[in-house]
Amino acid sequence: MSVDGVVASLPAREKAGIDRLLQWLRIPSISTDPKFREPTRKAAEWCAERLRAAGLKAELRETGTQDKPGHPIVWATNEPGAAYRGPHVLFYGHYDVQPPDPLELWESPPFEPVVKPAMPGHDQPGERIVARGACDDKGQVSTFLEALLAWKEVEGAIPVRFSVLIEGEEESGSVNLYRYIDEHAEELRMADVCVISDTGMLQRGRPAITYGVRGLSYTEVKLHASDQDLHSGLWGGRCPNPISELVKVLAGLWNQDRRVTIPGFYDRVREPTPDERASWARLPMDQIAALKKIGLGRDADVGEAGWTALEREWARPTAELNGIYGGYMGAGAKTVIPAYAGAKVSFRLVADQDPNDIEQRFFAWLNARTPPGCRWELHSHSGGFPGNVSTDSPYLSAAATALEGVSGGRPHLIKSGGSIPVVGHLKSKLGLDTLLVGFGLDDDRVHSPNEKFEVSCFRLGVASHVRLIDAFSKLTV
Amino acid sequence: MSVDGVVASLPAREKAGIDRLLQWLRIPSISTDPKFREPTRKAAEWCAERLRAAGLKAELRETGTQDKPGHPIVWATNEPGAAYRGPHVLFYGHYDVQPPDPLELWESPPFEPVVKPAMPGHDQPGERIVARGACDDKGQVSTFLEALLAWKEVEGAIPVRFSVLIEGEEESGSVNLYRYIDEHAEELRMADVCVISDTGMLQRGRPAITYGVRGLSYTEVKLHASDQDLHSGLWGGRCPNPISELVKVLAGLWNQDRRVTIPGFYDRVREPTPDERASWARLPMDQIAALKKIGLGRDADVGEAGWTALEREWARPTAELNGIYGGYMGAGAKTVIPAYAGAKVSFRLVADQDPNDIEQRFFAWLNARTPPGCRWELHSHSGGFPGNVSTDSPYLSAAATALEGVSGGRPHLIKSGGSIPVVGHLKSKLGLDTLLVGFGLDDDRVHSPNEKFEVSCFRLGVASHVRLIDAFSKLTV
Repeated sequence: MSVDGVVASLPAREKAGIDRLLQWLRIPSISTDPKFREPTRKAAEWCAERLRAAGLKAELRETGTQDKPGHPIVWATNEPGAAYRGPHVLFYGHYDVQPPDPLELWESPPFEPVVKPAMPGHDQPGERIVARGACDDKGQVSTFLEALLAWKEVEGAIPVRFSVLIEGEEESGSVNLYRYIDEHAEELRMADVCVISDTGMLQRGRPAITYGVRGLSYTEVKLHASDQDLHSGLWGGRCPNPISELVKVLAGLWNQDRRVTIPGFYDRVREPTPDERASWARLPMDQIAALKKIGLGRDADVGEAGWTALEREWARPTAELNGIYGGYMGAGAKTVIPAYAGAKVSFRLVADQDPNDIEQRFFAWLNARTPPGCRWELHSHSGGFPGNVSTDSPYLSAAATALEGVSGGRPHLIKSGGSIPVVGHLKSKLGLDTLLVGFGLDDDRVHSPNEKFEVSCFRLGVASHVRLIDAFSKLTV
Repeated sequence: MSVDGVVASLPAREKAGIDRLLQWLRIPSISTDPKFREPTRKAAEWCAERLRAAGLKAELRETGTQDKPGHPIVWATNEPGAAYRGPHVLFYGHYDVQPPDPLELWESPPFEPVVKPAMPGHDQPGERIVARGACDDKGQVSTFLEALLAWKEVEGAIPVRFSVLIEGEEESGSVNLYRYIDEHAEELRMADVCVISDTGMLQRGRPAITYGVRGLSYTEVKLHASDQDLHSGLWGGRCPNPISELVKVLAGLWNQDRRVTIPGFYDRVREPTPDERASWARLPMDQIAALKKIGLGRDADVGEAGWTALEREWARPTAELNGIYGGYMGAGAKTVIPAYAGAKVSFRLVADQDPNDIEQRFFAWLNARTPPGCRWELHSHSGGFPGNVSTDSPYLSAAATALEGVSGGRPHLIKSGGSIPVVGHLKSKLGLDTLLVGFGLDDDRVHSPNEKFEVSCFRLGVASHVRLIDAFSKLTV
């Protein structure tokens, strides 16, 4: 088999490939909203059908319980027994999407995908596919599906053994995925490496491999005082105000250097090597330009002292307040001392921090600071381990070479400050490394109105997956 | 005319009087919410009609502007020319109420008033009227209205010259009252003294005269960072999080002694005299028992170091967070760094602090602490001067003697930590002293779900106003 024939076929195949993606994008698979249960399943069926078209055996596997049914997992493998070469690859993706609201901010309806000229103000011209899920993750998964189909239709078969797992709950916490992985550990362990396309690139046209993502520990903390709301005139100065007390405690989470003050918080942090820091410094990442895009100036380049913005995002843990509430939050004035106040407090973690350990340390830190007359109500929301692949992994090297063949330039080796909890789970439960090869751009507006995936990114993604399959097939494992 | 006949008539009149109060309480006069504009006006009309029934000439006077109409002021006087004796008395009250939320915490709907047995755990049995406004201020104003009606119906006339001003914006900042007072200064200056029933007693059955209230400065502060919500994975650690930054600034409002740290905050505070502190220490005020009633223990007796709970409420200024908001406040987790976060920050003030001066100092203090990359949006909501009456005023002496006649005991001379800004305004603009003679109890849950006014308090209030009218009529001015 030859990769050249497959690559040569791609330009002629592109329009049909995009049309197929548009079909998928028309199905509003909003997993978090029970009203969209049926279309979410329909999106799974559509995906299974595409995998079958590429010659794989595909099925929908149910998740959840009778009382609380989940969304199905699309599971596919190519038939055993054929003359596969190279490693057995697990491809993971998701077919569900974020809710599209606020609807009024969309240029065109979120589930009526359109191919449009570039947005004004972009630094490079280029058509874009606009729809909810255009990039995250239907567009990215489609680059893989189209590569499989090209191999099948041009060369008659896919030269690498694949298992494919496309879940339908990534945007609603993957509530059933981890039990599924645990229950299907044997089957999944047959894979040698996992590939995910759900990340981005630093520049148009230059592929990137993400070799690390941060972990997450997400909590909610509520501080209770009186058993009722109080009049701030009659009680102000006489008893604890839970908003004021919460604010005083949480303000102590950071020191003057914006380092987290929880004892032991940094104990297990693996610092980036001098080589890593040097290579990151050479990447085309402009923090000041990025701040400008979100309405901020140079003075907003703040974070843990002693690290660059990129290092702070990729290699340093943080404590963030994602939400805060208490007392009167409406228009105007109300002189109340409320019964409680609360905050959503999350921690982004790096190797080798453990989300459970961090959560315990945080809760212990809070308990050691309970304001007089108050009590805590502490919740754990969700979390995940940080995920990392060694930069000298043979899979990563093979992938880098394949991607160089697509663009002519060496792919950027990058990390992401975001969290893809499945990466850490596959590593800790199955010992499986994950290659994150994604084709998004930082202005793709994922999770926001007018999400887009550029046609040039789609093209690059399909070509990359075609060459990745070839590179894997030539790898000795 | 004889007060004895009027007093003797009261038991037989009580049921009808309570029924009239229940009618008023059924009208949801929530002044702060534009949806309740019509019922708020209806409550004003109801009040004017009751004043007419007592023989006064009553009318609704519009407030506000064409663009921004206010709620009407109920204005009433008894006909000039009659043989009044004693001072001309201005009675001030309000017919509007606080919003009832959170609705789910009410035992019965807030605008379906009911007369119920005492709440379990109360130290004295006694029926209570449960509704929004039951005490604050419809219940208290009703004790005055019923006293007027009793004099009119039993003795044929009210022996004292009255002006009555019942406003409809007390719970939403009295935005139009102060201009009204300025514009009607001539008319209002005809009064010799003002009487307000919007305060409380220390004990059931023992009237109290409040000779001082705190002032208020109420602000809203919003801290802005990026111009859009950000993903906390991609941006956490790279730019300011306005919730975290707001929390860090606000936590600095107090020092370890719980004193406010704004420079000059205490400069104009007039400290209570040693005699005053000694007399307060003798009052039957049990902070630990009061804390217990709101679900708090002895450890919740916190406030500015060096002062008792009573002194902290009556004679010390405070800074309170009445509300805080920002980021994701719904159920579950959302990994967002929001564009802004805000807080409602108020200050209770004592003589001779000036609310405008305090607000300016606070805003300057914030501006000196603007976190890097952020900007403040600072709002002034409402405020008022502290108000005080000299304890050797002849009106206060006459009132004390009248109230002693009702209960057999000398009324307590107390202060309140709450704010009645009109008191300070009447004094500074018109030179008018105010007697605060109120019949609430500290567990009446004003501004909270299940607000109540006890039937015994209503009874005491009506009898007190009947005797107060008599005492004023016998005073030489």
